Amino acid sequence: MGTQINGIAASDGVGIAPAYLLTKPNLSFEKYHISDPNSEKARLHSAFEKIIQKLRETKKRLVDRINAEDLAIFDTHIAILNDPEMIKQVENRIANQRLNAESAFAEVITKMIKTLQAMTGNEYMQERAADFQNIQDQVLAELEGKKLPNLRELDHPVIVVAHSIGPADTSQMDSHFVKGIITDLGGRTSHAAIMARSLQIPAIVGCNNITRKVQNGRRVIVDGFEGNVIVEPSTNDVKQYQQIADKFMNVRQQWKKMINQPSVTADGQQYKISANIGSSVDISSAIKNGADGVGLFRTEFLYMKSDHLPTEEEQFNAYRRAVEQLNGKQLVVRTLDIGGDKPLQFMPLPKEMNPFLGYRAIRIALDRPEMFRTQLRALLRASEFGKINIMFPMITTLEELQAAKKIYYEEQQKLAVDHPGIGNDVRLGIMIEVPLAALNADRLASEIDFFSIGTNDLIQYCFAADRGNDSVSYLYQPLNPTFLKLIKHIIDAGHAHDTTVAMCGEMAGDRYALPLLIGMGLDVYSMSASSILRTRSMMKQLDSKKCQKLYQQAITTCDSMIGVKKLVQEWLIAN
Amino acid sequence: MGTQINGIAASDGVGIAPAYLLTKPNLSFEKYHISDPNSEKARLHSAFEKIIQKLRETKKRLVDRINAEDLAIFDTHIAILNDPEMIKQVENRIANQRLNAESAFAEVITKMIKTLQAMTGNEYMQERAADFQNIQDQVLAELEGKKLPNLRELDHPVIVVAHSIGPADTSQMDSHFVKGIITDLGGRTSHAAIMARSLQIPAIVGCNNITRKVQNGRRVIVDGFEGNVIVEPSTNDVKQYQQIADKFMNVRQQWKKMINQPSVTADGQQYKISANIGSSVDISSAIKNGADGVGLFRTEFLYMKSDHLPTEEEQFNAYRRAVEQLNGKQLVVRTLDIGGDKPLQFMPLPKEMNPFLGYRAIRIALDRPEMFRTQLRALLRASEFGKINIMFPMITTLEELQAAKKIYYEEQQKLAVDHPGIGNDVRLGIMIEVPLAALNADRLASEIDFFSIGTNDLIQYCFAADRGNDSVSYLYQPLNPTFLKLIKHIIDAGHAHDTTVAMCGEMAGDRYALPLLIGMGLDVYSMSASSILRTRSMMKQLDSKKCQKLYQQAITTCDSMIGVKKLVQEWLIAN
Repeated sequence: MGTQINGIAASDGVGIAPAYLLTKPNLSFEKYHISDPNSEKARLHSAFEKIIQKLRETKKRLVDRINAEDLAIFDTHIAILNDPEMIKQVENRIANQRLNAESAFAEVITKMIKTLQAMTGNEYMQERAADFQNIQDQVLAELEGKKLPNLRELDHPVIVVAHSIGPADTSQMDSHFVKGIITDLGGRTSHAAIMARSLQIPAIVGCNNITRKVQNGRRVIVDGFEGNVIVEPSTNDVKQYQQIADKFMNVRQQWKKMINQPSVTADGQQYKISANIGSSVDISSAIKNGADGVGLFRTEFLYMKSDHLPTEEEQFNAYRRAVEQLNGKQLVVRTLDIGGDKPLQFMPLPKEMNPFLGYRAIRIALDRPEMFRTQLRALLRASEFGKINIMFPMITTLEELQAAKKIYYEEQQKLAVDHPGIGNDVRLGIMIEVPLAALNADRLASEIDFFSIGTNDLIQYCFAADRGNDSVSYLYQPLNPTFLKLIKHIIDAGHAHDTTVAMCGEMAGDRYALPLLIGMGLDVYSMSASSILRTRSMMKQLDSKKCQKLYQQAITTCDSMIGVKKLVQEWLIAN
Repeated sequence: MGTQINGIAASDGVGIAPAYLLTKPNLSFEKYHISDPNSEKARLHSAFEKIIQKLRETKKRLVDRINAEDLAIFDTHIAILNDPEMIKQVENRIANQRLNAESAFAEVITKMIKTLQAMTGNEYMQERAADFQNIQDQVLAELEGKKLPNLRELDHPVIVVAHSIGPADTSQMDSHFVKGIITDLGGRTSHAAIMARSLQIPAIVGCNNITRKVQNGRRVIVDGFEGNVIVEPSTNDVKQYQQIADKFMNVRQQWKKMINQPSVTADGQQYKISANIGSSVDISSAIKNGADGVGLFRTEFLYMKSDHLPTEEEQFNAYRRAVEQLNGKQLVVRTLDIGGDKPLQFMPLPKEMNPFLGYRAIRIALDRPEMFRTQLRALLRASEFGKINIMFPMITTLEELQAAKKIYYEEQQKLAVDHPGIGNDVRLGIMIEVPLAALNADRLASEIDFFSIGTNDLIQYCFAADRGNDSVSYLYQPLNPTFLKLIKHIIDAGHAHDTTVAMCGEMAGDRYALPLLIGMGLDVYSMSASSILRTRSMMKQLDSKKCQKLYQQAITTCDSMIGVKKLVQEWLIAN
């Protein structure tokens, strides 16, 4: 039996393959004086040529597999290496100061990187800085005879082992070859975890220092169900886990049959399972996975990718396209949720000490209502082409909700002059993601048509723990019994006023949370598209009455999240 | 009648005096070439000499009024201006590059400031950077013939009008001459507000751009009760407000009679009014103001001012001194509450994106228990010299509380070998400042002897609004009816388990909150020493049964903080 290491189960499935360490080798170097500038220049150019050659080959191999924009990065990198001004500066340092190639090159490129980085607020320049950084690593590795990991080069199945995984790594990851992901850092809501679930790659995060325990090329098993890593497994381990993997493959096939089925429990209670999406491109994935609708359409993409405030017309077209694709199903659109960690190019926001507790979302909308009004008009107009619901983020007080509604109704009335009856079918809702709103759910429910519980933020505020901060990730506790009672309070408050209650945080797609949420009576479960069929399939096995009892048992007998999780695990096995 | 401007009432009282604008003039300058370096050098030296002369005079005037440490700053500033290396560099620029004195001097000193600022994490260097900045302003102002405001120079009564006020300004403020404070920024918990209450100076904060509306030397009235500023008041205004000021002076005299009185309502219900203190020096002020004890002794000062981890002996001496001074009254000590915004010189903490939602307080204590154990041992030993209660900050989950208690009891048992019975009289408590703990108060209460509600943090987490961020200061709503219900829930949960419930946030000293808190049955009111007598005096006028009815009325009839405030205001007038 191999060595077992435990982490946080982040994405279901089992992967068996050699480890591929995504850790950068130590690229530090000595600064020294050379005696023969010409041979040093030759060393430099030979390194450049090898890298250019490799870039060309990889580009060729990927030409049909990635989009044109991503492909263009290769040309950018080649252009950097061919830049005559850069080459001249490095050669001068080698010739005049007799510096070794590593120092000469690093000095020049570091200066370029710093200049680019200093242009804060300019996203394009920041990306260019990352390109130069990447080239620097490649050249130094080549000069020092070291090998850099490169996901683009993968041509066989591997388990990626990394300290952490960011969007730049993700974009290079070919799920065809990546059979599992293991990281030192991260929790269930980290980028790596969310991305792995979305790509359906088994993953385990928060393994502390696994990058120092696993060697490149050694065989590894990732058990994404239980959060276990087995390093150098025995033949028996491999056989056993292969069976689980095969079984899960079959299960996945079964799930596919659920695409056109209703979302219903064993005892016939019907719910809705919707998709959370980040842009209109994601809608096709939602439809492919049989979503009952879109429970959260984030509109930030329209603003964050733009160098100007998106016009009413641009927005109207985007919303109309989205809702038309849904073909009669509901599209819940969240109004702009920017601020703090989500900056805009065309609207500089103040630097804040605690952006998650700052000027964001509806707070900005009410403070600068023109931008908000434009979005509401675009949404109202698009609502003539399908079922659009509008949801306000970060509502804290009743007054904020009333102010937002007032603005909405003003825009509706103005538009109604030319479009009689416009918006009459639009349902209005709010995110419940601030503790005060959760506590005041009863009063808020009387004001609107639906709630959507944003558990990611609600947990982070209730526990006073930034969900992106690894030092406090132990406080991400969706199954904490006190937190479960708060969710139940929100659901009951909603139902007392005929207000639909949805959930659109990570928790909605959590397999241990599902029976509890059914037991509490949650109406709509909104999650990443890849979780929908699994959830619908699981729902079909569950009895809503038994789920009610399970919830009661959880809050009366458990003191901690660990207790609840154990209870649900045992209950799932027994039921 | 003069012009009226409204802000947030931050400190009681009325002040009438000419405005003193604490705003820096525009010190920007042209960079140009001079023809006569010698006369330019003379200009520079004449400016230096004038400033040195002024610094010497101010120092002389203050010699008996401020402490030696603060006095030493004058010598530091004079030394900077006499630094031969700095002078040489500036002169070289004037002579060789033919730069004007402003540019030459600014170039040199800016370089020095940047070098100092780059040494982040070194608090001493950061303070030196501030000194250089100050000198830069003085020299540029002198060269440009502009006048810098300088609180140290005050020799007549003024109303200080500032954009915001920081600790550096406060330390220069002589309450003898400062009759009122008005700021553009800030809320009731900003530094300016807390400091003004503590110095008993009438203050109004959050006036937006009052610094642009009031001119230097114009007469101003500060009505710190209602938050009204009257600019260029009529004779009638002055007469009317002078009467209020005189009346308030009498009231203050009356309060002084309450020093040795019990904290009791009109109908004989007894409570405790304690002091929040930041160091052992503050204890005398607590005693002078008749505190029933110390409800919050922050221990950070021991750590933040030290270049090493304070030893058990150093801590024991500090705690013993503190509790002995209290002469039998209770001292509630909060264990170390560092992290994020409160860095330590000897223990580098990670930079966090949202420090208020990060690695801090009990989270650090449980993660690095050695430091925590040292503090607990020192506290246990000091408890043999008086009534010490120990309080854990930032408790979120039951498991954290249980882990903290376990460590405490382990240290107690170890000490009990040599000190039989040590700690048997120590009561254990927790801060309730995280929403989850507030919601789980019932279960937590069964584990400890007392709660202390930290309203500043609890409000900031419940409303997801950083209390130091002006853009969201409208969400600091202690009187929000939903928040009041949460406070009531905590109090009831405590009482169901015979757990004393205290409050140690700003809310405890708020005059509109007091009748509501009495109505909810709060046991201990802990506040800045300067608010104690006012609160005790007000308490004596209140009937606890009527307060109960007021609370019920507030939560059943009011929808918003504004509604509650209005209700209480009217109730106070009628009762």
